[in-house]
Amino acid sequence: MKKLLLIIISLFVLSLSYAQFENMNNVQMLETMRDISRDVIRIPDIPGYKTLKCEFHIHTVFSDGPVWPTVRIDEAWSDGLDAIAITDHIVSHRRVNQGDHNTSYDIALPRAQELGIILIRGGEITKRMPPGHFNALFLKDANAIDVADPVASIKEAKKQGAFVLWNHPGWKGQQPDTCIWLDMHEELFQANLFDGIEIFNAREFYPVALDWCMDRDIPPFSNSDSHYAMLSHYDYEHSIRPMTLVFAEEATEEGIKKALFEKRTVAFFNNYLAGKEEYLEAIFHGSVEIIPKDFTKDDGKKLYLLRNNSDLDFILSGNMDEFSEGIRNLQIDGWNNVKLTRGRETVILAKPGKIDIAVLNLLTGSSDHLKTDLTFPE
Amino acid sequence: MKKLLLIIISLFVLSLSYAQFENMNNVQMLETMRDISRDVIRIPDIPGYKTLKCEFHIHTVFSDGPVWPTVRIDEAWSDGLDAIAITDHIVSHRRVNQGDHNTSYDIALPRAQELGIILIRGGEITKRMPPGHFNALFLKDANAIDVADPVASIKEAKKQGAFVLWNHPGWKGQQPDTCIWLDMHEELFQANLFDGIEIFNAREFYPVALDWCMDRDIPPFSNSDSHYAMLSHYDYEHSIRPMTLVFAEEATEEGIKKALFEKRTVAFFNNYLAGKEEYLEAIFHGSVEIIPKDFTKDDGKKLYLLRNNSDLDFILSGNMDEFSEGIRNLQIDGWNNVKLTRGRETVILAKPGKIDIAVLNLLTGSSDHLKTDLTFPE
Amino acid sequence: MKKLLLIIISLFVLSLSYAQFENMNNVQMLETMRDISRDVIRIPDIPGYKTLKCEFHIHTVFSDGPVWPTVRIDEAWSDGLDAIAITDHIVSHRRVNQGDHNTSYDIALPRAQELGIILIRGGEITKRMPPGHFNALFLKDANAIDVADPVASIKEAKKQGAFVLWNHPGWKGQQPDTCIWLDMHEELFQANLFDGIEIFNAREFYPVALDWCMDRDIPPFSNSDSHYAMLSHYDYEHSIRPMTLVFAEEATEEGIKKALFEKRTVAFFNNYLAGKEEYLEAIFHGSVEIIPKDFTKDDGKKLYLLRNNSDLDFILSGNMDEFSEGIRNLQIDGWNNVKLTRGRETVILAKPGKIDIAVLNLLTGSSDHLKTDLTFPE
Amino acid sequence: MKKLLLIIISLFVLSLSYAQFENMNNVQMLETMRDISRDVIRIPDIPGYKTLKCEFHIHTVFSDGPVWPTVRIDEAWSDGLDAIAITDHIVSHRRVNQGDHNTSYDIALPRAQELGIILIRGGEITKRMPPGHFNALFLKDANAIDVADPVASIKEAKKQGAFVLWNHPGWKGQQPDTCIWLDMHEELFQANLFDGIEIFNAREFYPVALDWCMDRDIPPFSNSDSHYAMLSHYDYEHSIRPMTLVFAEEATEEGIKKALFEKRTVAFFNNYLAGKEEYLEAIFHGSVEIIPKDFTKDDGKKLYLLRNNSDLDFILSGNMDEFSEGIRNLQIDGWNNVKLTRGRETVILAKPGKIDIAVLNLLTGSSDHLKTDLTFPE
Repeated sequence: MKKLLLIIISLFVLSLSYAQFENMNNVQMLETMRDISRDVIRIPDIPGYKTLKCEFHIHTVFSDGPVWPTVRIDEAWSDGLDAIAITDHIVSHRRVNQGDHNTSYDIALPRAQELGIILIRGGEITKRMPPGHFNALFLKDANAIDVADPVASIKEAKKQGAFVLWNHPGWKGQQPDTCIWLDMHEELFQANLFDGIEIFNAREFYPVALDWCMDRDIPPFSNSDSHYAMLSHYDYEHSIRPMTLVFAEEATEEGIKKALFEKRTVAFFNNYLAGKEEYLEAIFHGSVEIIPKDFTKDDGKKLYLLRNNSDLDFILSGNMDEFSEGIRNLQIDGWNNVKLTRGRETVILAKPGKIDIAVLNLLTGSSDHLKTDLTFPE
Repeated sequence: MKKLLLIIISLFVLSLSYAQFENMNNVQMLETMRDISRDVIRIPDIPGYKTLKCEFHIHTVFSDGPVWPTVRIDEAWSDGLDAIAITDHIVSHRRVNQGDHNTSYDIALPRAQELGIILIRGGEITKRMPPGHFNALFLKDANAIDVADPVASIKEAKKQGAFVLWNHPGWKGQQPDTCIWLDMHEELFQANLFDGIEIFNAREFYPVALDWCMDRDIPPFSNSDSHYAMLSHYDYEHSIRPMTLVFAEEATEEGIKKALFEKRTVAFFNNYLAGKEEYLEAIFHGSVEIIPKDFTKDDGKKLYLLRNNSDLDFILSGNMDEFSEGIRNLQIDGWNNVKLTRGRETVILAKPGKIDIAVLNLLTGSSDHLKTDLTFPE
Repeated sequence: MKKLLLIIISLFVLSLSYAQFENMNNVQMLETMRDISRDVIRIPDIPGYKTLKCEFHIHTVFSDGPVWPTVRIDEAWSDGLDAIAITDHIVSHRRVNQGDHNTSYDIALPRAQELGIILIRGGEITKRMPPGHFNALFLKDANAIDVADPVASIKEAKKQGAFVLWNHPGWKGQQPDTCIWLDMHEELFQANLFDGIEIFNAREFYPVALDWCMDRDIPPFSNSDSHYAMLSHYDYEHSIRPMTLVFAEEATEEGIKKALFEKRTVAFFNNYLAGKEEYLEAIFHGSVEIIPKDFTKDDGKKLYLLRNNSDLDFILSGNMDEFSEGIRNLQIDGWNNVKLTRGRETVILAKPGKIDIAVLNLLTGSSDHLKTDLTFPE
Repeated sequence: MKKLLLIIISLFVLSLSYAQFENMNNVQMLETMRDISRDVIRIPDIPGYKTLKCEFHIHTVFSDGPVWPTVRIDEAWSDGLDAIAITDHIVSHRRVNQGDHNTSYDIALPRAQELGIILIRGGEITKRMPPGHFNALFLKDANAIDVADPVASIKEAKKQGAFVLWNHPGWKGQQPDTCIWLDMHEELFQANLFDGIEIFNAREFYPVALDWCMDRDIPPFSNSDSHYAMLSHYDYEHSIRPMTLVFAEEATEEGIKKALFEKRTVAFFNNYLAGKEEYLEAIFHGSVEIIPKDFTKDDGKKLYLLRNNSDLDFILSGNMDEFSEGIRNLQIDGWNNVKLTRGRETVILAKPGKIDIAVLNLLTGSSDHLKTDLTFPE
């Protein structure tokens, strides 16, 4: 009993090294510092393509943000991104009046090269609704698109070969109570004047815009639209900044540009992936491993490990009657749902064979999600 | 047994609300966002004075930092500070060439007023060692101190009534292997040309500089010297940014200035407080409450709660033989130390009376700490 | 620029003390250990009463849990509770066949006294629905209620002066798709055979049962019904175990018993408080402090700090048009809601005067919450 | 500016879903619950062997712990272990008097099979020093070793083919101020009566015992010696429970037994690995990947990613003069150390070629660590 008390009660932390300071001149208290190494976000490549993590909508001190362009590179590196576009507002220079819309790109580029981040020259064509805000990506000269008329500005961007993105279509600043595809958007779309739509922006999700993407074969995007330091926007302890997954033949600016025009994107935020079924299915099956264990129950059911090797949680739904007691324990009673936590495993007793499931957080529409199956080997 | 399994195994988190999206236009995913309310750091006032949390060494885009001055106010507010000085390098304008050393203060002031932060006009006199870097606080015009000679610059600051602070005396950039009080520092000190010394800077601690402060009655400081966003420097989940505690008659700029010249500071970082014994003792006894409980053991020892109402951990050391089994359980075996965790309680069986203790993380010198006592009431 | 890079990039953590081990025999790696001091949960007392944190539904190895009774005391102490009842199933002794329903209480009592936890003798009358499971609290002899008939068992408990609690009325194990007040419950209630109802149990909330409590003046309860170690049930990093707040004249077993029979409880879980408006209002106003700051805007609005001194978050709703820009910034756009985070502050520009608010997480019914006001002084 | 303020300030969390409760009968508040899926601890296999995570020293309610044997299986599963031995004290049955030392194993076995955990029958021969406590692993009948004389008890264990482990040689309960290899230990060792030594136990590290292991070719162990629930001992948010890495030909009880007798173990705790250089080197190089990036500086240095795919941090030391500015940025100034954080990446500018490094937290002795090299490809 004495040892018992001793063990349980003396287990409190003396985290301070309060003893003598070994160096009277300069003690480095590194335990107070944030780890600035680079995050590795585990999302599998899909057959034929690398899965690149990209962000196409960020501001700096060269429009109305309070941070210097190089900070955006440092953040992208630390957050595990492969590529970013800095997209300062083309029409406003509130912070620092440089009169040159290419400045933020030019300042950031050397830092990007040193850290291995792909930097894309961009700019935001910031206009009243309609048509609202549009990002022009892969620009050659951002100054040339600084014209008052939104259509003229977009046309100049297209002349430079830009990929044009409709930003935050449901932003309350421009569409307070709704998110509508207006006539002008139809005209722009028919004239091939925009190529993608943000369905996630900052902290917002526009489900109806995901339906537009799916119905008209437009690639969906997820961007932060960050003005302040990323760390001040998002709760990094529990979340990840928004990012657009791009399925590219190679990890280069050209590879990304080709992928965008060939519509190979999935929007990723808040543990939701949204996009075409084929991409979601490839990511799901590239993430989840079913490992048979050497144990069989009396009723012929076998023991399996379900290991989720990705950094996404998956919420499965299915007819769990086909499973034995093991899997039923893992259901939320009465709900028939199972969570496969990122980087962790779940244990299941199941009959060998195939079962149909839905993956509730992989969205193929505003009220649709991936349907696929799981195969339990003999 | 069935209920048992059910309870233990079904307890996994379905944190996603993957159901239908109630608003098809715009779903606010607020769970991804950082809470930006203001921290309340519980450190008690001391008799006769308010305890203000201050930071006197920060940079912005107006010298070589990448952040806009208003960010420093937002950070100070969110971090629970009462006052800051922005102290851009007087001699270098690398980021933005405004040619006016007062700009960062002027830009930050309206934001400071709106959030209730006391903003002090300052500047860093950045010179080679000796004498090194010095902050001038409470300046009237920062441009006037932009002169090449360090002594002339400091003298101009003093003419404006400034409080002058010797920054990071042991910084490896200027004193790579040591931290020495050079002849020139003695001359400046004799001529009353500086008034305080940083003993904590960024992530560094200079124990020998604490001894200088104690031996010559110089107030010690703790500052971040932050160039980047605060969140990118410090691990806010486990630590607090460096701050200087100022014991002021009133929470105003004048109150702080008076307190500094009257040497009422304690340097606070990484759960260390460093300064004069009288201040440390007042903070310790203002933080720790001893609550007798209605239980007495056979040997006459009584049950007490030790509650630490502050946001500091205290590491106590003492002759624990005077305590009964209760306290021995709370010792780290063989060490005779007890940790009073911030905002938590510890239970003790003790004889009523007074015992001598040391508080190991309250530093009165490079190898000295607060000696005081605890009184257990009848 | 060099110093710049140095500062930002070298800020990574070397948390290991990998140097020589100062003690070759035994190095105490205390940094790996859980802090086992006692939590202080800040919920204010209300006028006339102490606010005690209690839990009235826990199991041990003496029914179908896998933990020893003393563990329940250690957990209660560490979790900041004032009082617990251990309520092993009266009819089943699966783990350890002691044949004595008083054993778990008797084993736990000395540990409770040593740690200052009030321990209440209890037992769970575990029967089929109807009537379901009932806890008998303040028993004198738990063995005497071990009779097959549920009503007879409850009557024996009442004869001993017990307070009887209807447990988890909506538990799916007994009411799979519903939560109904059956005829038998009406009979028991009319005969004064039960006195309280759990509206929170384990991870569940029964909103309809809160309405029963409010409509019939029955005190609501929040309990864990824990079988396993508390730490294995709840996510202590982000949540707090369920507890029943009891407003007692004194912190004794008798004080709690009197308070229960006088219906002075509020159920607390998952940042919801549920109960009578008068108690919720007292807790809210005892928690939130409005501190005028010395700054007035041109439009006559003044700056105020709203400080939440409790460990509850409050979600306010109101007509925010009466506030100036400051408070609108703190709204979730279009929602008119403001969050006062526990232990933190919010800043507001407002006209002096009184405004009506609702506090959305303080529940006075399944679809009702506290209505009160905030007063901004001149 | 308005949008700006809106974005920064409105980013606070409304984590409560305080709206109407969709289900009036039973709302599942799953966000309060601990995730109980299984941890995947990424430590690579080494050439020819699987790396199994094992724990060989745990107590239950069948000696002096307060937890039921099945809990130890649930914990092992959730903590990512492959195998455990329950090793209740052979001589004491304080909690529950079953009179049968095999009971805890027998109760735990079915749960182990259902979750795929390898369970090893064991027992602790708990004697005064000398010789102290010894664990007997792979027993056939734990009752047979319940004899008073320690040597006789060990001999009976060896007769059953047991692997015998000297537990916590430096435990202060038996060697208060020291950790000594006594004559009796020499006799036992010469007689082949013990086979392994714990160098980590609970929260303790005995550096001198690591030297004994290295000098006499004895496999080192790391065990928890846990009496209470694992979660109550260790700070799982920042640490991992102690475990012994076993390099086995196959993941079976027989595979583990063979590996132990063939001395293929490494002790793992608190981010230290301790053992033979060949094992540490294999784990290090199996964990760290060097990825050349397509960027070369003017001075011929190339850009490389160092990715640490394991769940161990590595602290490197070396002559960093061979690296370019990139790597120097990543040094702790003046220390020449670099941290490779688990699951993250670091970026380096280096000349192609090989450099010598030391890995400071991979221990080959009380004051020695792994020496190896890093190769940067052309």
